[in-house]
Amino acid sequence: MSDKKPLIQPRTLKGFRDFPPALAMPREQMIDKVRTVFRSYGFAPIDTPALEYAEILTGKGGDESDKQMYRFTDNGGRDVALRFDLTVPFARFAAQHIGQLGTPFKRYHVGPVWRGENTQHGRYREFYQCDFDTIGTNANAADIEIALIIHDILAALGFERFSIHVNHRLVLNGLLASLGLAEGAPAILRALDKLAKIGAEKVAAEMQATAAVAPEQARQILETVQIKGSNSEILEELEKKIGQHERAATGIANLRQLLAAFAAAGIPENRLALDVSIARGLDYYTGTVYETLLDDLPGIGSICSGGRYDDLASLYSKQHLPGVGASLGLDRLMAAMDELGLLQDSTAPADVFVVQFTEESLAHYIAVSRRLRDAGLRVELFPEAKGMGKQLKYADRKGIPLTLIGGPDEMAKGVWQVKDLRDGVSEEVGDGDLVEYLQGKL
Amino acid sequence: MSDKKPLIQPRTLKGFRDFPPALAMPREQMIDKVRTVFRSYGFAPIDTPALEYAEILTGKGGDESDKQMYRFTDNGGRDVALRFDLTVPFARFAAQHIGQLGTPFKRYHVGPVWRGENTQHGRYREFYQCDFDTIGTNANAADIEIALIIHDILAALGFERFSIHVNHRLVLNGLLASLGLAEGAPAILRALDKLAKIGAEKVAAEMQATAAVAPEQARQILETVQIKGSNSEILEELEKKIGQHERAATGIANLRQLLAAFAAAGIPENRLALDVSIARGLDYYTGTVYETLLDDLPGIGSICSGGRYDDLASLYSKQHLPGVGASLGLDRLMAAMDELGLLQDSTAPADVFVVQFTEESLAHYIAVSRRLRDAGLRVELFPEAKGMGKQLKYADRKGIPLTLIGGPDEMAKGVWQVKDLRDGVSEEVGDGDLVEYLQGKL
Repeated sequence: MSDKKPLIQPRTLKGFRDFPPALAMPREQMIDKVRTVFRSYGFAPIDTPALEYAEILTGKGGDESDKQMYRFTDNGGRDVALRFDLTVPFARFAAQHIGQLGTPFKRYHVGPVWRGENTQHGRYREFYQCDFDTIGTNANAADIEIALIIHDILAALGFERFSIHVNHRLVLNGLLASLGLAEGAPAILRALDKLAKIGAEKVAAEMQATAAVAPEQARQILETVQIKGSNSEILEELEKKIGQHERAATGIANLRQLLAAFAAAGIPENRLALDVSIARGLDYYTGTVYETLLDDLPGIGSICSGGRYDDLASLYSKQHLPGVGASLGLDRLMAAMDELGLLQDSTAPADVFVVQFTEESLAHYIAVSRRLRDAGLRVELFPEAKGMGKQLKYADRKGIPLTLIGGPDEMAKGVWQVKDLRDGVSEEVGDGDLVEYLQGKL
Repeated sequence: MSDKKPLIQPRTLKGFRDFPPALAMPREQMIDKVRTVFRSYGFAPIDTPALEYAEILTGKGGDESDKQMYRFTDNGGRDVALRFDLTVPFARFAAQHIGQLGTPFKRYHVGPVWRGENTQHGRYREFYQCDFDTIGTNANAADIEIALIIHDILAALGFERFSIHVNHRLVLNGLLASLGLAEGAPAILRALDKLAKIGAEKVAAEMQATAAVAPEQARQILETVQIKGSNSEILEELEKKIGQHERAATGIANLRQLLAAFAAAGIPENRLALDVSIARGLDYYTGTVYETLLDDLPGIGSICSGGRYDDLASLYSKQHLPGVGASLGLDRLMAAMDELGLLQDSTAPADVFVVQFTEESLAHYIAVSRRLRDAGLRVELFPEAKGMGKQLKYADRKGIPLTLIGGPDEMAKGVWQVKDLRDGVSEEVGDGDLVEYLQGKL
């Protein structure tokens, strides 16, 4: 300890974390790519405050989200809280502004949310969400677009083997109604939701126990939701089994239109998987539902999920606002990209490193750095004229692939030594050829 | 009121605001451009939590920032607060991670901060800051780079008439020391800081009243800080007046190196203005200081300011971390861009609007939209097959310049009607020429 004030221990709160460049760079690049896809579909960004009236945020919530909220009284005596998702603020936002914005309204929103969750399972108390929705229309074209965006995002991030699992709640509702089980739907779907986890036998037992489903009915439900085959075979089978039921027929028609759109868009058929067993968000979704699985990492679960809902903002507005949307799990996605080697090369802060050989020539190095930047290269010039070994070690540690060395000899000859730190090979390059040479090396 | 639960009034907290697309789009584009400049210099992003131990955040603060803090006890009984700037979290971050990250360390950080400020002067309680710093080096090359980055950011945002005002605290310190006034420096500089606001006479009076400066000394100080002329004339004049003083000489040499670097970088001379009168951040900055003014909007004050400091993280670490950096006023910058017409065209969510003529042809529209997206165009397809007038009105209201109409006639002929909503002119374009035609129109 010095004789000054004792040091304050530098630390973050439990469940919170810093993002040093090695984490922040790939996240930023990931979000850039995702936003480029959103923009290519005419989706526009919105933002809402981190802090809201607690009354707004609790409006919907069960006790669970209430307990997890960072809620306090501000200096003006207001009961406020940090948002715990981007859905509730969007509902409030829509109620407040949709009259001016008009419908259909297509937005994306990327931002942090806060939940005082148990941190045992590697969960963070501050994390990013990324939501995108089209509201103010019932058209199935909007549902199709959400699925296309999910596809394009994963492709843009470099994933090759993935599938978007889709279902339609009207198919499930129609199935249950056709068996005379419309009333028991919530309990039945809750059981069905566990199919992947606990298996058909236990699901059947739970349906019988909680929703008075007869064994034969349970068998029929499970048989239908587990139809196997190509997407069109599944549709045909559904058509036969429950196509005469009006609601189911609507669901089937919507799914058929989705398949046709994906085919027209030239997307490989195995990237879309009809899956009659998925229900999702029991009290919320009413039409199409989506889950997205990575073939190579099935264990991490769905990385992008969502669906169609009937009314977004009923807590805050009398205006009926149907919509469809999905939420991208950015943390999970980044972990998956890391595991599949899709993040490589994304953490080098620059393409070219310029050695500061002597301080007297600083202006010379600044001029060449500028020329390279104008050509679109990212260039880092070392601030001090330290020993070359130290400078090259710095560049190597940062993962910068190319270094530029111009001492008095090179300057006299009008050339640069370009050292490729990836293979250690140096070449002498004329000043006039430099940009082209470096671009060719990258 | 319906007979359901009464509606919750949708509203934001005082001093907080929503960003609908018309605000969020230009902000996002502005931040994109700024980050591209940071990246071109090898600066890497970092992020830190919104919420920190209050002890960390108050560490430095005077009462003023304490009072403005959103501070509360979390559910785990911790005394926590929302960050009120990005500097204190960076100091904490550096103390914690610099050993692993190594120096020099160049980072940028863009994110929201929260202050319970008085909202009377149009101030918001949640706003974005954008900081960039190089720490762990005393080299003047780092100071020069910060000035170059400020320049490139403004140029990238489309500003043409602006100037970066620079000074060096060693010049001011040397000046005062040469007059035997080293001890009174804080009070004198505090008076000097008001020069632009209250004028030379009142500054002289304040110096005499608060720092026992003799009238002749005050005259000499004010004469020196107000030297007029070109940058090199000012430097020469300073050289003559105080160049024999060691500290001043160092400051002058650093400024000279900065001028040479800007010249070598080919930057118009009037974009850099030596200004011996600026002091800034009296207790913090110790070397180069920057302020950035827009020639066309001098009234809004500096839009990017900063300087060199001696030790970033002394509250949290024994490691000495000198650095240099600046902070970009994003809100002010966006207001200025708006006023100077630099935001136009940035709020259209798409380049091309595809009319959904009939739902039967949806797959056809989806296919063409996809083709255009693959060519880099942003394409919005209307989700419903509503009347064409309604659809075109929607596109026009959103500011989308080009619309694509393909009804049964066009489909039969293999063509598209392209209507330019900016002039109302329509042309028939062959399907094979479509991409090129649209790109030419944008």
